[in-house]
Amino acid sequence: MTATKECIVSGMRPTGPLHLGHHFGVLANWLDLQEKHDCLFFVADWHALTTEYADPKKVKGFVPGLVLDWVAAGLDPDKCVIFQQSQVKEHAELHLLLSMLTPVGWLERNPTYKDVATELAGQKDLATYGFLGYPVLMAADIILYRSTAVPVGHDQLPHLELTREIARRFNFLNCPEDKPFFPEPKALLTEEAKLPGLDGRKMSKSYGNSIALGEPLENIAPKIKTMLTDKNRLRRTDPGDPAVCNLYPYHKLLTAPEKCAEIREGCTTASFGCVDCKKALMESLTAFLTPIHERRRALEADPERLWHILEQGNAKARARAAESMDAIRKLLNFDF
Amino acid sequence: MTATKECIVSGMRPTGPLHLGHHFGVLANWLDLQEKHDCLFFVADWHALTTEYADPKKVKGFVPGLVLDWVAAGLDPDKCVIFQQSQVKEHAELHLLLSMLTPVGWLERNPTYKDVATELAGQKDLATYGFLGYPVLMAADIILYRSTAVPVGHDQLPHLELTREIARRFNFLNCPEDKPFFPEPKALLTEEAKLPGLDGRKMSKSYGNSIALGEPLENIAPKIKTMLTDKNRLRRTDPGDPAVCNLYPYHKLLTAPEKCAEIREGCTTASFGCVDCKKALMESLTAFLTPIHERRRALEADPERLWHILEQGNAKARARAAESMDAIRKLLNFDF
Repeated sequence: MTATKECIVSGMRPTGPLHLGHHFGVLANWLDLQEKHDCLFFVADWHALTTEYADPKKVKGFVPGLVLDWVAAGLDPDKCVIFQQSQVKEHAELHLLLSMLTPVGWLERNPTYKDVATELAGQKDLATYGFLGYPVLMAADIILYRSTAVPVGHDQLPHLELTREIARRFNFLNCPEDKPFFPEPKALLTEEAKLPGLDGRKMSKSYGNSIALGEPLENIAPKIKTMLTDKNRLRRTDPGDPAVCNLYPYHKLLTAPEKCAEIREGCTTASFGCVDCKKALMESLTAFLTPIHERRRALEADPERLWHILEQGNAKARARAAESMDAIRKLLNFDF
Repeated sequence: MTATKECIVSGMRPTGPLHLGHHFGVLANWLDLQEKHDCLFFVADWHALTTEYADPKKVKGFVPGLVLDWVAAGLDPDKCVIFQQSQVKEHAELHLLLSMLTPVGWLERNPTYKDVATELAGQKDLATYGFLGYPVLMAADIILYRSTAVPVGHDQLPHLELTREIARRFNFLNCPEDKPFFPEPKALLTEEAKLPGLDGRKMSKSYGNSIALGEPLENIAPKIKTMLTDKNRLRRTDPGDPAVCNLYPYHKLLTAPEKCAEIREGCTTASFGCVDCKKALMESLTAFLTPIHERRRALEADPERLWHILEQGNAKARARAAESMDAIRKLLNFDF
C-alpha cells in the first residue's frame, strides 16, 4: 500500500511566543507532516485581526517571532512552504467570493461563535462581522490550495466541517457533478498530546504556567523545582501516583519510554523521589530544548534570514494561489 | 465662493440593460457630476454576486453592456474613471480589513437586510454572509478612494450612514484624533427625478413597463401610443389633469419647459388631446434618444473600445487604490 501524499494547509495566529503546549499540541505534528506530505504553513496575520482589530499595530511584532519559533523547532523551508497570509492577496479575494455563497445561518450555528457571542452579550461591539465570518476566511485559506487534509484538534472539527460544506456548496453551484473543483479536506485528527501547564491547568502564557520554546534553561530549572507533584505523596517514603502528578505528563512526552517506565515504577514503589523525578525531567527538557535553542541562536544572529524564509515562501504560495484563483475565476466566468 | 471639488465614487450592478428610469434616477446625475468633480464610476460585478451567486456565470455578459449604456448616455472616460470592481483587488483586501472592525449588530439593523431576511424567512439559505456584509463591501468601495461624497437616493441613506460609521471607527482605532485617514463621505442627495413605468408603477424590466436606453424608436412608438393617460378624461373635449396622467412626468423630464407649459395648459383646457400629447412625447423621446443611439451604434461597431475603456479605467483605479492601500497598511502596521 502506498501512502497518498496529501496537500496540507495549516496556520497559527501571531499573538506571542510559542510554549511547550503549542509544540506538543500542534508543532510536533507539523514536523511529522512536513516529512510525508505537501505542506503549507502560514502566519495567520489577517486572522489575528479578528481579536486584535482595536490594536492591529501589535501584530507585526509577533510575525518574525512566530517564524523563528517554527524554524527553531525544526520546520524546514526546504520541506514545506512557510508563508504569511496577508502577503497572498488571493486569500482576501477568495474570502469575498465564498462570503457570497455561505448562508449566515451556518456561521451563527458555529459553536465557537455562539459561545463568544453569549460571553460578549454585554459588550456586543466585539462581535464583529469578521469574527462571525472567521470560518469563511479559514475555508478560503485552506481550499485556495485545493488542500486535501487539515490537521485539527477535536475542538476545531466544527470549523473544518464548515470548510467542507463551503467547498461542497461551491462545487455544487459551479462545477459539473463529476468534476468538483475543490477537494473536501479531511480532518487529520492530531493525537491529544496535550501538555498541561506547570500548575496542571491548560498551559497558557496568561496563566503564568508556561515554558516558552525560547526560554533559557536557567529560567526553566526553578520553575520545575517548584512544580506541584502528587499532592497526596506527603513523605518521600509514600508511594506516588503518576496519574495525578503534574510532572508525569511531561515525562511521557519528553523522556524516553524506558526511562519513563523506570520513573513510574520508582514513583509507585517510593524508590524514586519527587526531587529525583524533577531532576530527570530537567535533563529531558535540556536534551529537548538544546538543539532548538541552538537553531534559534543561529537564526537570531541573522535576522534577515527569517524575512528571507517568508519572502521565499510567500512567492511559492502566491504562485500556487494565483494559479488556483485563475481557475476559480474561469469557473465563475469572472476571467476578464 | 469656490465650489470644492469632491471625490465621488458610485457604482451599478451589471444585471441587465438600463432603461429610462435608470437614466433619470442615476445616470443623468452622474453626467452632471463628471463635469464638476473627480468621479469614479464602477461596474459592481462582485456586488452582483450577492444575489447571483447561484449563477455567477451570467454576470460577465452584462458587463460590457453596462459600460455601453453609460458611455452612450454621455459618460466620458476622459472626464471620469470608469472601472470594474473585480479588477481592482484592493476592494477585496479592504473589505476584509473593514470586516474585522464592523460590529455585526450594525449590519443586522440595516433596514434592507431586515426586510429581505424577513421576506426570505422560508428559504433562509439566500440570506448569505456576503449579503449581510453588503454594506461593508460598499464601504470599502467608497472609502478606498478616500471619497468625500456619494450620490444617493433617500432609500440608500442608511447604507451611506454605515459607510460613514465604518470610516469613523477605522479612524478612531487607527489614527490620531486630529488626523483621520478616511473622510466621512457626505450624501449628495439626488433630486427625486423618478420616472414611473409606462403603466404608472415603478419602471422595471420585470414589469414589462420600461423603455430601454438602447431600444429602437420604432419599438417605443407603439408603447407610447398604448400608455394610459388621465383615466378620468373620457372624451377629447374633457379637460385633463396632468397630476394624475402617466404621460406628464415624462414630459417634465424630456420636454423643454416652455413646451411643457403649453402641454399643461392645453390639457387642462382641453385644447390639446392625449393623442397630440403622445405625439409630442415621441418627438421629445426621439430628440433625447437619437444622440444616445448614435453613440451606441459607433461603440457597437468597435466592441474592443468598451474593453479598452474599462482597461484604462481599471489601470487608473488600481493606481489610486494601490496608493491608498499602501497608506492603510502603514497605518495598521501591516506594511511588510
